[in-house]
Amino acid sequence: MRVGLDIGGTKTDAVVIDAEGRIVHRVRQTTGMGPEAVVATALDAIGRLADLAGMPRDGFESVGIGIPGMVANGTGRVAHAVNLDVDDLDLGGILAERVGVVVRVENDVKAAALGASHLLGATGSLAYLNLGTGLAAGVVVGGRLWRGSAGIAGEIGHISVDPEGARCACGQRGCVETLASGGALAREWGGSHEYPVLELFDAADRGDERAIALRTRLGHGTAAALRILALTVDVDQVVIGGGLSGLGERLHTVIRDALVEAAADSPFLASLHLEDRVELVPPGSPVAAIGAALVGIGELSYG
Amino acid sequence: MRVGLDIGGTKTDAVVIDAEGRIVHRVRQTTGMGPEAVVATALDAIGRLADLAGMPRDGFESVGIGIPGMVANGTGRVAHAVNLDVDDLDLGGILAERVGVVVRVENDVKAAALGASHLLGATGSLAYLNLGTGLAAGVVVGGRLWRGSAGIAGEIGHISVDPEGARCACGQRGCVETLASGGALAREWGGSHEYPVLELFDAADRGDERAIALRTRLGHGTAAALRILALTVDVDQVVIGGGLSGLGERLHTVIRDALVEAAADSPFLASLHLEDRVELVPPGSPVAAIGAALVGIGELSYG
Repeated sequence: MRVGLDIGGTKTDAVVIDAEGRIVHRVRQTTGMGPEAVVATALDAIGRLADLAGMPRDGFESVGIGIPGMVANGTGRVAHAVNLDVDDLDLGGILAERVGVVVRVENDVKAAALGASHLLGATGSLAYLNLGTGLAAGVVVGGRLWRGSAGIAGEIGHISVDPEGARCACGQRGCVETLASGGALAREWGGSHEYPVLELFDAADRGDERAIALRTRLGHGTAAALRILALTVDVDQVVIGGGLSGLGERLHTVIRDALVEAAADSPFLASLHLEDRVELVPPGSPVAAIGAALVGIGELSYG
Repeated sequence: MRVGLDIGGTKTDAVVIDAEGRIVHRVRQTTGMGPEAVVATALDAIGRLADLAGMPRDGFESVGIGIPGMVANGTGRVAHAVNLDVDDLDLGGILAERVGVVVRVENDVKAAALGASHLLGATGSLAYLNLGTGLAAGVVVGGRLWRGSAGIAGEIGHISVDPEGARCACGQRGCVETLASGGALAREWGGSHEYPVLELFDAADRGDERAIALRTRLGHGTAAALRILALTVDVDQVVIGGGLSGLGERLHTVIRDALVEAAADSPFLASLHLEDRVELVPPGSPVAAIGAALVGIGELSYG
């Protein structure tokens, strides 16, 4: 049995999977901020799962972790996890010593890509496009994660598609992430709703022009991300996950409309049939936590 | 011994390579326009190489072809080869029947990517960025070509990076190809010079403001293409080839300047060290013809 921890900016989703990749135990808890609290959160989740499974913590085959930060190839070290207030932390090394099992760490979106590929039984190539606070993708080929030379494969959120666009936190202008991410939409929409993008979609449905414009921009930005994926890695399918995927068919419609609109102006784009290659993660699918557990297996990535 | 034909819009470069991948014979000739003339050009080149090698045409192990058009995965059929006035042609099938050997066909940029990977002895991942009449890339991983699901992996020339940019032949606006390709530069620069981009670079060196602006735009467009490759496939190295690479260090400087300028505004981009991962194809390297010959081996691509 293997443990998977999806350590998010607010919650940590922790699972135990069996040899067939099915979830047998699951716990959720609040994520602590800062290096020490992140380690404590992970230890606590592993302990609770061990109790549920009725075995000691070091009885698991592996612990795999998905975390929103940069993870250098072949290390358990996470850097620039700004949402967790972690600048640099040898999470894998510390946990391995404390728990006594193999611990492997991966960027959360890349881990989720592995989980999505597994859940969908994808045998060819798949990209997982995460529309969460930020925007990023993970690419899986033949069941293995494509990390790239520096571990940044799939970081398409920071490709600029508009030189006159809004300034991005990365320093560039018009990054895809400034158009199509929950963080960018929430900042522009404002308000104090717990789920600002949901409020934005509701307002757009009621005819609010500012909301309609932002919703349309989300569609265009996501379509740009899908074109980038199609024209570089040309994967068999793209699965959209992340917080915004909870909007379900309402999000799917906005993306499809943007793809169809762009294809109307371009026979070339029309010939790609992008709208047929895109689906949303099924609602409630724990792709990130399962993916994290799969990360623990190792040997499931290139690079 | 294997034959490789790089069928270009004006010239066809044909080689015979030995088992070690070295060129042992080479001929060049003018490419005929239209389906029948393209077939005749290929047959003529194969015949001349057979004479040079002192063997019958069906004595070669294979014929591999690189051609500027779309080649569907696993077929010898080329479509949309507009520069050759070929809409749809079963070039592989026709030549195999006429010559009596295995014939394999590949998009010319993808074939050149294979050739560049071979010539540089790349063992990891490599992208070949072709700055010719158009702009496109080929991605090679572990010596094998990544074709993608629909054979369009690497067609980054048609990713839009400016919604207000020039209209592209593909129907979109602001495609990378409208910024950084020989065709786009020649159209904008005008004149009747045999090598308009060379004239443009000379004029820029003399201080011509319009030439300087176009040269700078070429740098920015190429830098955008390099960022797209880094942030999607994150290859170990990028090799720039195609007609514009004949400008050598003059081109390299323009690209490097654009990368450094963008990195100055973005610590994120600076951390990618793109300028260290880019080189030009060595002048006169027959990457396209060698790559075409390697295409004949088969089994050197995914998808």
